[in-house]
Amino acid sequence: MLYGVSYYPEHKSNEELKWDLKLIKESGINTVRMGEFSWCRMEPEEGRYDFSWLDPVIEELGQAGIRTIVGTPTACPPAWMVEAWPDMFYQDNRRICRPFGGRRHGCYNHETYRKACAGIAKAIGKHYGRNPYVAGFQIDNELAQEGTGRCTCKNCRKKFQVWLEQKYGGIETFNRKSGAIFWSQEYRAFEQINPPVNAIEPGAQIQIRDFYESPTVRLEFERFSSESQIEFQNIQADILKAFTSYPVTTNGTGLVTNSIDYFKGFENLDCYAFDYYPNLRDAWVDSFPYAFGRGVKPDLPFWVMEFMSGGGHRLSGTGRLQPGPGALKQAVVQAFANGADLLLHYQFRSFPAGAEQLNYAIVDLDGIPRRRYYEMQETANLLKQLEPLKETSFCSEVGILLDYDSHWALKIKPVNEPEFSYMDFAGKLYYNLERIGIHSDVISLERDFLSYKALVLPASFVLKKETAKRLQEYVKQGGILIATFLTSVKNEDNLGYTIPLPAHLVEVFGVTVQEVEPVFDSNRTKLGIRLASEEDEVETRDKAWSELLAGNAKLLGYYKDTYKKDSMVISQHSFGEGTAYYVGTDLEDSAWRALFKSLLGPVCNWKDEIEAPEGVQVISRIWQEKQIYFLFNFSGQEKTVCIPAGKSDFLTKEELLQEIIIAQNGFKVIV
Amino acid sequence: MLYGVSYYPEHKSNEELKWDLKLIKESGINTVRMGEFSWCRMEPEEGRYDFSWLDPVIEELGQAGIRTIVGTPTACPPAWMVEAWPDMFYQDNRRICRPFGGRRHGCYNHETYRKACAGIAKAIGKHYGRNPYVAGFQIDNELAQEGTGRCTCKNCRKKFQVWLEQKYGGIETFNRKSGAIFWSQEYRAFEQINPPVNAIEPGAQIQIRDFYESPTVRLEFERFSSESQIEFQNIQADILKAFTSYPVTTNGTGLVTNSIDYFKGFENLDCYAFDYYPNLRDAWVDSFPYAFGRGVKPDLPFWVMEFMSGGGHRLSGTGRLQPGPGALKQAVVQAFANGADLLLHYQFRSFPAGAEQLNYAIVDLDGIPRRRYYEMQETANLLKQLEPLKETSFCSEVGILLDYDSHWALKIKPVNEPEFSYMDFAGKLYYNLERIGIHSDVISLERDFLSYKALVLPASFVLKKETAKRLQEYVKQGGILIATFLTSVKNEDNLGYTIPLPAHLVEVFGVTVQEVEPVFDSNRTKLGIRLASEEDEVETRDKAWSELLAGNAKLLGYYKDTYKKDSMVISQHSFGEGTAYYVGTDLEDSAWRALFKSLLGPVCNWKDEIEAPEGVQVISRIWQEKQIYFLFNFSGQEKTVCIPAGKSDFLTKEELLQEIIIAQNGFKVIV
Amino acid sequence: MLYGVSYYPEHKSNEELKWDLKLIKESGINTVRMGEFSWCRMEPEEGRYDFSWLDPVIEELGQAGIRTIVGTPTACPPAWMVEAWPDMFYQDNRRICRPFGGRRHGCYNHETYRKACAGIAKAIGKHYGRNPYVAGFQIDNELAQEGTGRCTCKNCRKKFQVWLEQKYGGIETFNRKSGAIFWSQEYRAFEQINPPVNAIEPGAQIQIRDFYESPTVRLEFERFSSESQIEFQNIQADILKAFTSYPVTTNGTGLVTNSIDYFKGFENLDCYAFDYYPNLRDAWVDSFPYAFGRGVKPDLPFWVMEFMSGGGHRLSGTGRLQPGPGALKQAVVQAFANGADLLLHYQFRSFPAGAEQLNYAIVDLDGIPRRRYYEMQETANLLKQLEPLKETSFCSEVGILLDYDSHWALKIKPVNEPEFSYMDFAGKLYYNLERIGIHSDVISLERDFLSYKALVLPASFVLKKETAKRLQEYVKQGGILIATFLTSVKNEDNLGYTIPLPAHLVEVFGVTVQEVEPVFDSNRTKLGIRLASEEDEVETRDKAWSELLAGNAKLLGYYKDTYKKDSMVISQHSFGEGTAYYVGTDLEDSAWRALFKSLLGPVCNWKDEIEAPEGVQVISRIWQEKQIYFLFNFSGQEKTVCIPAGKSDFLTKEELLQEIIIAQNGFKVIV
Repeated sequence: MLYGVSYYPEHKSNEELKWDLKLIKESGINTVRMGEFSWCRMEPEEGRYDFSWLDPVIEELGQAGIRTIVGTPTACPPAWMVEAWPDMFYQDNRRICRPFGGRRHGCYNHETYRKACAGIAKAIGKHYGRNPYVAGFQIDNELAQEGTGRCTCKNCRKKFQVWLEQKYGGIETFNRKSGAIFWSQEYRAFEQINPPVNAIEPGAQIQIRDFYESPTVRLEFERFSSESQIEFQNIQADILKAFTSYPVTTNGTGLVTNSIDYFKGFENLDCYAFDYYPNLRDAWVDSFPYAFGRGVKPDLPFWVMEFMSGGGHRLSGTGRLQPGPGALKQAVVQAFANGADLLLHYQFRSFPAGAEQLNYAIVDLDGIPRRRYYEMQETANLLKQLEPLKETSFCSEVGILLDYDSHWALKIKPVNEPEFSYMDFAGKLYYNLERIGIHSDVISLERDFLSYKALVLPASFVLKKETAKRLQEYVKQGGILIATFLTSVKNEDNLGYTIPLPAHLVEVFGVTVQEVEPVFDSNRTKLGIRLASEEDEVETRDKAWSELLAGNAKLLGYYKDTYKKDSMVISQHSFGEGTAYYVGTDLEDSAWRALFKSLLGPVCNWKDEIEAPEGVQVISRIWQEKQIYFLFNFSGQEKTVCIPAGKSDFLTKEELLQEIIIAQNGFKVIV
Repeated sequence: MLYGVSYYPEHKSNEELKWDLKLIKESGINTVRMGEFSWCRMEPEEGRYDFSWLDPVIEELGQAGIRTIVGTPTACPPAWMVEAWPDMFYQDNRRICRPFGGRRHGCYNHETYRKACAGIAKAIGKHYGRNPYVAGFQIDNELAQEGTGRCTCKNCRKKFQVWLEQKYGGIETFNRKSGAIFWSQEYRAFEQINPPVNAIEPGAQIQIRDFYESPTVRLEFERFSSESQIEFQNIQADILKAFTSYPVTTNGTGLVTNSIDYFKGFENLDCYAFDYYPNLRDAWVDSFPYAFGRGVKPDLPFWVMEFMSGGGHRLSGTGRLQPGPGALKQAVVQAFANGADLLLHYQFRSFPAGAEQLNYAIVDLDGIPRRRYYEMQETANLLKQLEPLKETSFCSEVGILLDYDSHWALKIKPVNEPEFSYMDFAGKLYYNLERIGIHSDVISLERDFLSYKALVLPASFVLKKETAKRLQEYVKQGGILIATFLTSVKNEDNLGYTIPLPAHLVEVFGVTVQEVEPVFDSNRTKLGIRLASEEDEVETRDKAWSELLAGNAKLLGYYKDTYKKDSMVISQHSFGEGTAYYVGTDLEDSAWRALFKSLLGPVCNWKDEIEAPEGVQVISRIWQEKQIYFLFNFSGQEKTVCIPAGKSDFLTKEELLQEIIIAQNGFKVIV
Repeated sequence: MLYGVSYYPEHKSNEELKWDLKLIKESGINTVRMGEFSWCRMEPEEGRYDFSWLDPVIEELGQAGIRTIVGTPTACPPAWMVEAWPDMFYQDNRRICRPFGGRRHGCYNHETYRKACAGIAKAIGKHYGRNPYVAGFQIDNELAQEGTGRCTCKNCRKKFQVWLEQKYGGIETFNRKSGAIFWSQEYRAFEQINPPVNAIEPGAQIQIRDFYESPTVRLEFERFSSESQIEFQNIQADILKAFTSYPVTTNGTGLVTNSIDYFKGFENLDCYAFDYYPNLRDAWVDSFPYAFGRGVKPDLPFWVMEFMSGGGHRLSGTGRLQPGPGALKQAVVQAFANGADLLLHYQFRSFPAGAEQLNYAIVDLDGIPRRRYYEMQETANLLKQLEPLKETSFCSEVGILLDYDSHWALKIKPVNEPEFSYMDFAGKLYYNLERIGIHSDVISLERDFLSYKALVLPASFVLKKETAKRLQEYVKQGGILIATFLTSVKNEDNLGYTIPLPAHLVEVFGVTVQEVEPVFDSNRTKLGIRLASEEDEVETRDKAWSELLAGNAKLLGYYKDTYKKDSMVISQHSFGEGTAYYVGTDLEDSAWRALFKSLLGPVCNWKDEIEAPEGVQVISRIWQEKQIYFLFNFSGQEKTVCIPAGKSDFLTKEELLQEIIIAQNGFKVIV
């Protein structure tokens, strides 16, 4: 596994550099990332490229066995550039420009800026494309971060109008498909359509409260902006690939930003890479982002380009907790267990200056190696021991299907905020499957899913007719499909279906939705819902959203009180060779687990043989045709876990009793 | 009673239209509202009017006995118009324009836009003014909604300056009357006076935190803007009336927006109409908006132009609760009991597109009639049975006096936000009177009130000298006046009176205010207040605001602890033939009821003979010179109510025992 | 002591003026403040000055023994001026101009506005400089109030760039010192540097959420803006001083605004003056602002230019509590005891008009003297009795060291908001010292501090190397230094030190900081910290921030659980002749007291002999070489206090028992 840190030699005096490189070389890591914020050094004036400050660092590290991921510095266009092209600034949904003085202040659709990006990418490609000490390339940095994914500048407005015209052909088609007659909004030309005033980016502010806009225009602007950024990134990708055979990628922001459709964004890149900053202090570390990472490019391992070091002042100054002793090592192993092929801590040594000053790193600002450094050193060593397990495979038999259209549409018109969020809900279902030892992948709804034993379809609000047909075919051929409330409510134009819901899937599920409403505290049923599973009966409260079902499906769960008493809310329906389940409300965690256990337990082959206590995470992979287990104790205290007989500890090679103890922040690899 | 729905034929395909009209005709309703958002269809290009798409719908429904309220579509100026006149956009207090893409984006003072509105109103008047299937006209839609009642565009600024000049004559007069010397703000010309930076509209955002402006300028801007919108509306009203004898009105937003003085706004219209969206899920439905509705045009019934259907996604997407079974019917009967002459559910069938998509309606988006449709059908039938009771009259003997000057002044300088709100406080007093069976009207302070047995004057913060004289005369002639804290603190220029408070009314109340302060948790008295009524003694905590009184009035309530101990807070004073009460703080509900019972019980003739349990609302009307009762159970459970002997059920004609049971969401009409 | 009110004769009719002056003269006060908001009267058109309206008032009061502080009216540039120079408006960090209609709408760097200010100051100086009835001059009013301390207009931007150029010389120096290489922000000319988008002023709003800027640019802009305002103020100060020998000052906003470095701001003025609005209703009144006041100009008494009257509607309208009976008198005596030489209530009589209308005053708007007026009258009388005690001195042996660089830097990058605030933390330490009878001064870190027995250095985040040397020297020579977490983390460029922390002080404290993090509820240690003092052991929870220490210092406090168990968090180290303590976390109040008692008790001579119960404040001064005591009961109820034998009541001359009773809102002066 590639393991290391981000490093910024351009910030250093010769003396500091010497000291840092000594520590880096002694740490046992094999990879660093450099260069991604150094445009003013790489190209100090237009067209003059200079890598002389970076070359010796790459060389020195390379000779010590440490290879470099070189970043293109395009997230930070330098002062000379913004002065030369003052119309290149990113402009948000309130028409406010992001000035020089931060980062990501360039409009990704600005042609001259794009040319400058192509220029620096070409220079980097030429210079480093075949350098033996280089391990790969990162394009730009965290596209769309800090609310820079939805530029509305004059240029973007024009381009959006052209994009719409190309998609729809005539304005009459657009008016009809978008329902523009609502509020008398029929356009007479694409030039009349502007980017929306409202925005769903993290951090976006709304200029005009209670300004309600066309959901079609809004969703199209999400798609246009996502595509524009992918186009921006791919200009560099194509250039770099012409000069190198090393992996070329960019770093996504995991589940946080979601302003770019990563399923599309990484198509043209060599591997999925993302940044992850979990809390490492006695806290559960979610596997869901890793599962998402495996799903973006299904046949390839993924990279964690930036990873938590812990402690420090954060960008905002508020501060971050230190990792508990052992937690850093534990988290790196967890990333490995989840399939990461590279992990770089952010960063090697704290910054004294700039927006991220005092944001802690592996080594404190005074350059003295302390706890986090020594733990990284141990981890580097440990990873070598774990290397044989890289060849293990995942044993997922369930697919969780995600889609950016639904994600965006549910941000544009959130059904019950903040209680319900599409991504969090998908994560919750993943978590509950993981907790009962059922292994799932998280994949694009567009992908081929026929090979999965079962599919979970969380709140697929926007669902194309063709997708409905693919799902129908899947069940028909024997698949198990578990869909939830808010399935297939809208078409790809973000318009509500005018046919019974779940649209185009009524036949498959054997139910129609009779009545819907949000679930607030005021209308939550008191007695809740009863799940009549085959094994035993579970009770739960309804959450977030409620749908009453009717049809010829088998009743699997029903309301216990209020006027909804006895109404079906969970249904089971045989269709073709398969079975389709519809779950009309969100459930409590324990009820989801009971339901999944009952529905999926019997059909999955690779269920875990370990029942993990609260706070212990089990990750299972197939090695030499057997399941092996990674156990992580996130509970903040020592834990005892029961395991099957005859297992041994991969690292110590010791045979294990059936009751093993895992220390706080500890882990075990059991084979 | 006119009963029905809003409907949008312009959104429909032929097939959808056919299906919808079939359902509408089968539903038993007699009225629909159409056209109010369809400008781009009614006038697809400047000056070319087209009603050919609407005519057949009106015709088909009319032949089935369903008449149409036709709306003028001026809330949604179409794309061609805003392109032609780019200076017509509404501009808020932060100088931010509301772009095309929502609704209400036109400035109501823009001359060319006004001409276009006159044009479409004239076309509608000519085309539909004598159509036998038309039932009336609605001008525009929800003026001032979503924060569009306070335009500050260049044109409005100029007009405001002229308006001030016309009102004040010279700038010296303005300076003196507004106290402009404060903070050295004396103007030298009206051109120097700008609309305020701060705004009190719902949804208004403040650009400059801690920017403090002249309360006189602010109140004048409220008045100017309200008048401008009334002027805007009346251009259409005058035109329509020239062509029709059907009622012409517009739909107010009830107690929500309050950016327009509805007492003035409906003077030139044929009836008051407003929109009301109460929660229909096991919740108390306030009568206060209806009482307000009766008071706007005192001799006429009012209309509920839009009314809750329940369920759905709302404009924001957040979602609305479904009505409990029976609650829709119950609420319509309550509106009828409260004097509504028309009620239209919003709307017939959900929108697939646009800002209000998935906002539920009587019929779901899939067009399948379900619970709400069938309940509307039953309700339509029921209303026919109740028709004879339309001839009943109200038996209000108490007048609650409201005034927009005080409402606005208390928003401009709120005394204890959010605890105290003028409108909510008036509603609270109404509620407590209703709960003890004392019937009140809610009327403009400007109206003749001599005929009422008693007047309630809640927090009449701004009170003209002439009004004080009218109140004085009322008491002198034998009236009972109950005023509260914050009475007559400021004059009509929104300047504090420099004489003892309540200004110009000290003689009437026999008290002056000695000391005032807000009541927060930190200074609320622990033992509170004792009401020494004639019958028994009641204790209560003080709330919102505290005034200590002194004078020769009789002590009716006093503080029980802190330094306020024994200070008078409620006073009683005989003046002429009448009595004036001053209540120096807000009380708990039960104390208000005890106080009202003690003061008003002895003088009111038409008190209810029914003591309603918690959650049951009693509305009483006079029929054949006897009180009849409508009882509504909003408690969320079955309720037993004791009624006088000898009553019968109006609907079943059955004689009733003295103990009757009302089901959850149920009601009874007792005669 | 100078005691009185603010008064606004320009608002009054002749009749009102006559009445008010009668009341003022009968009240016993000796000082009024006038004129500070009356520019449109003092200079009704450019260059024409008129004091004829003010002269007779000053004359009449003067003849009655009441002298006037005359204010320059420059906080409110009049309408003719802003019309003439439309580029003079104050512009905030979002580029939004503050229009005419409030106050403080002028840019303090605008040259023509500055000239007009100089002009009016000169006219006032000439006219009143030698008037025997004048007591002094106030420049402007509350500079920087309501978020007007950080203008970013075109002119200010230019001036900031020039200021930076003058400070740094070349742009390369700036780039290096500010670490501009971070995020590729190296400038090529000072013209490229703009004022920050973010602001830390009270009330400032952030235009671009998540916009992260250079902390160096941000701190420099704080300094530049503070200096600009001081420059603005000193233009007037220099002019006035040329015409008068009376004191010339301005009114700071105490600890609230802090947008101006008051230590520098008052260098050129004759005394420190500030405005203070404590809650006077059964609430503790902090002495910290007074201690700060004594420290600004250490050898001079300070003024309280505006002080609470109580009650009323406030600028926002929300309302203020009335003072409890006696509390006003009590608070004035407390100000006297704390060293105030002047105190003026704000204000004499409420305003009927303008932004501050109904904001209560000593006399209500109706002009009738009531409780507050009579209490002011008694207080005026009482102050005469206390006059001999003016000659007492303070007995502070401890210095608390404050610095605006640290204050601003911790606002720019707050470490744990809102839990930790620099000023509040300093106030908390002052409070705990006061509660145990140890007397401290609050002084600038730049000042000479060698004479103090001990120094307390709270969170001195930004600390120059030279200051570190001065502190080192202080300890070496025998001083006691108690520093806390976050000491000497950054240099004067607001860059993190790259040497072990506390930078340049490791030798003095004998520790280095090993690890830091914020303390949230989630990571607060459960068992907390144990203070091993010499006398007894105290336990406390950690708060706000946590630093683990290591070194050869003596362990004085350590963590009791989590991975921090047994780590040093409080250290003691002998250095030279003195001792240095480092406290690595915030403590609970009781623990701070125990710690201070143990460390400082043995070395302070002037400790109080009184142990005050909760809610009773003791202020001690030296009179005739003995300690005398002012005791204030802020507890909201009667309190019994034990005092040493042989004391007597200064006012009644009675001998006192060892147990005395102080009434609610009462006080005692014990000699």
